[in-house]
This record gives sequence, C-alpha cells and structure tokens, in this order.
Amino acid sequence: LNRIKASGLKLRFCTNETQATREKFVKKLQGMGFDISVAEVTAPAPAACRILKERSLRPHLLVHNDLVPEFDEIDKANPNCVVIGDAAENFTYANLNEAFRVLIGLEKPVLISLGRGRYYKETDGLKLDVGAYMKALEYACDVQAEVVGKPAKMFFESALAEMGVPPEQAIMIGDDIVNDVGGAQRCGMRALQVRTGKYRSVQTLHP
Amino acid sequence: LNRIKASGLKLRFCTNETQATREKFVKKLQGMGFDISVAEVTAPAPAACRILKERSLRPHLLVHNDLVPEFDEIDKANPNCVVIGDAAENFTYANLNEAFRVLIGLEKPVLISLGRGRYYKETDGLKLDVGAYMKALEYACDVQAEVVGKPAKMFFESALAEMGVPPEQAIMIGDDIVNDVGGAQRCGMRALQVRTGKYRSVQTLHP
Repeated sequence: LNRIKASGLKLRFCTNETQATREKFVKKLQGMGFDISVAEVTAPAPAACRILKERSLRPHLLVHNDLVPEFDEIDKANPNCVVIGDAAENFTYANLNEAFRVLIGLEKPVLISLGRGRYYKETDGLKLDVGAYMKALEYACDVQAEVVGKPAKMFFESALAEMGVPPEQAIMIGDDIVNDVGGAQRCGMRALQVRTGKYRSVQTLHP
Repeated sequence: LNRIKASGLKLRFCTNETQATREKFVKKLQGMGFDISVAEVTAPAPAACRILKERSLRPHLLVHNDLVPEFDEIDKANPNCVVIGDAAENFTYANLNEAFRVLIGLEKPVLISLGRGRYYKETDGLKLDVGAYMKALEYACDVQAEVVGKPAKMFFESALAEMGVPPEQAIMIGDDIVNDVGGAQRCGMRALQVRTGKYRSVQTLHP
C-alpha cells in the first residue's frame, strides 16, 4: 500500500460495508496502521448518494442507524425512492411495511439496494442480509432493485469516476473472486486476486 | 348452496384464509346464515398438515398466532422444514432469522408457504403479505417454496382427495379468475366464475 501511494498512482479503497459510516471503517484501519483517509473510500452508501443526487431522488431510508449520517446532505422530504441497506434490528414488520408503502405509492417505484448479500454470520448466529429483504420488496412491488456495492458494475464505475480514470487504465486488487475480481472485470478493468483473506485455491473464475 | 346440498353432490369450501382457524371462519359464515361446517372447508393450513403427515415433515412454524391451533396434532419437535403463513406482527427480525436458521441448517431445505400473496389492505394501510417473506427466505436459502392455497394445483388436489372425486368430475365455483378459475382449470377441473364479489367484467382468462 505504501509503495502504491509513493508511486503516485491514484488509489481507492472499495468496501461493501453498510452497517457503519466510512469514518468508523477508516478509524479501524488506521488503528491497524494503514495509511487511509475517508476521501479514499468508495462504499455503497456514498455511491448511492451520488446516484440520488444525479437523478434528483429523495430516499426513504431503511438502513442501519449507524449508516444514517452518510445521508445527512441528502434531501429526504417527500420521498420518491427507497434505499435499503443491511438495517439489522431496523428490519421490523412496521419498517418493512412503511418502506413498501412508499414504494408501491410511487408511479414508477425505484428501489436502490446497498448490496445483494443473502446472509452473514455474527457471534450469535446467522442473520438474513439485505438481499433477502430486497427480494421481498421486489416481489411485493414487482420492481427490480438497482444494486449498489460490489460486484455491481455501477459501483466500480463510481470509484473510477471519483478518480477520473477510465476502466482500462485501472486494476482492482481483492481477495473475493466474485465481488472483487468478477465485478471489476465485467466493468472493463483488469483484476488481481490476492491469496490472502477469503482466498481459497479451489476458487477460479470461469469466463 | 342449499340446492347443491339437497342434490346430494359432494361439496367443499376452498379458502385462502391463513390468519385464523377454520373454526373462526366457519362461525362467521354460519352467523351470516350459511349451512357450513368445519369438515367441509379446505384451507391452506390443513392442506399443509396433510402434506406434513404424508412426508413425515416436522415444521418450524412462522404463522399468525390465531392459526397455530390448526397445527396442534403435528409433531413440531426437531423441525425438518419451515411452514410460513401470513404471520403479520410475528414477522419480526428475530423470527425471520430463526426460520432462516432452521432452513439453512437442513441438508435439503423444505419451505412450505400458505400462499403467495404480495400484499393486502387493512384499515391502517397496505401490508406485505406472506409471498414477500417467502421470497426473502427463498433467496437467502436458494430454495423454491412449495405453495399451498389457491391457485396451487396441490391445493385443489387436496380438496378433491378429501372428497374422493377425480378432477374431471368436479367443478369449481368462484369469483377470482386467477385463484379460483385458473387454478381449478390447471388441475383438470372445470370452473365457473360468478359475477359477484371481486368479479370485474374486464377480467378474462387468456388460455
């Protein structure tokens, strides 16, 4: 990382974190000794904000409380779309019905999802991830969600736009063959899989 | 209804009600003056019970509290499937995670859904129906739910089996072109649409 920075190459960190702000995420990495700042991080929430601004969308949020500050500068009055993230405890019956009512009440429902994960593991067991609740709203409203976050093409395009770099001049480095390598390649970037983290030797990408 | 009964024809009432027992449903109709008994009603919950018994399935229930008595005689210890109905207030984050954990923990997940409705209207507004939550679990566990209730073929077959009548000797009478008429026809029965209830003249079934 220090060698990349010293070389003068442009750099972005791409994460699918949606249970906390970039500030919190960056502090954690800084604590581990990494040279990283909030401005260098591309995450689903700010990528969604970019889309909201571009298309004059005012979101109804169904997200984790800790993520709400990422949407501070976004107009949320009289919502004309729904943004769903891994809301965890906020996935209540009442909140799901409320998000549904906003969506179904729109002439052309727009659902933006900060990921498409099925489930994840916490210390107290497996939990349904945002993708499951996204599917519930998709079915109820007969819409297709627009997914932000890796491996969505739109997510990598956001990162490239922030750097002002065309895909063919960028390389993605990651440990996830689908979310990192596959997503970047579909976007026209080259990609490099590191043999650390979640890398397993049996995983290969069939073109 | 009285003329059908007087003629000696076999008769079943087929309903998609899953927020209450047949007892409650029948009492309501009796109060309106209809000659109807619980034994004449085919509803999703008892149809599911029939399937559970046939296949030695022990369900984890995610249903409305008022529906639980329908499953009184079913062994629910050490569950090897999940039965989902319109659980309403029981669709909590904790309950959904629990049903998900049962399903994902099974070698071959079996999900039985008491309907596939998208949403319905109550006095305090629109509510997500069982179909939306079914889709969430389907996606998270990569399974296809087995849907009981109209218009599922299996549901009409249950009613026919209870009467001991082959489909070609039965006729379905209802007001819903999809759930009543379409479902019965796909099952090999003839069907008659009444011009009452939810009947609208613009609705026709394209074969």
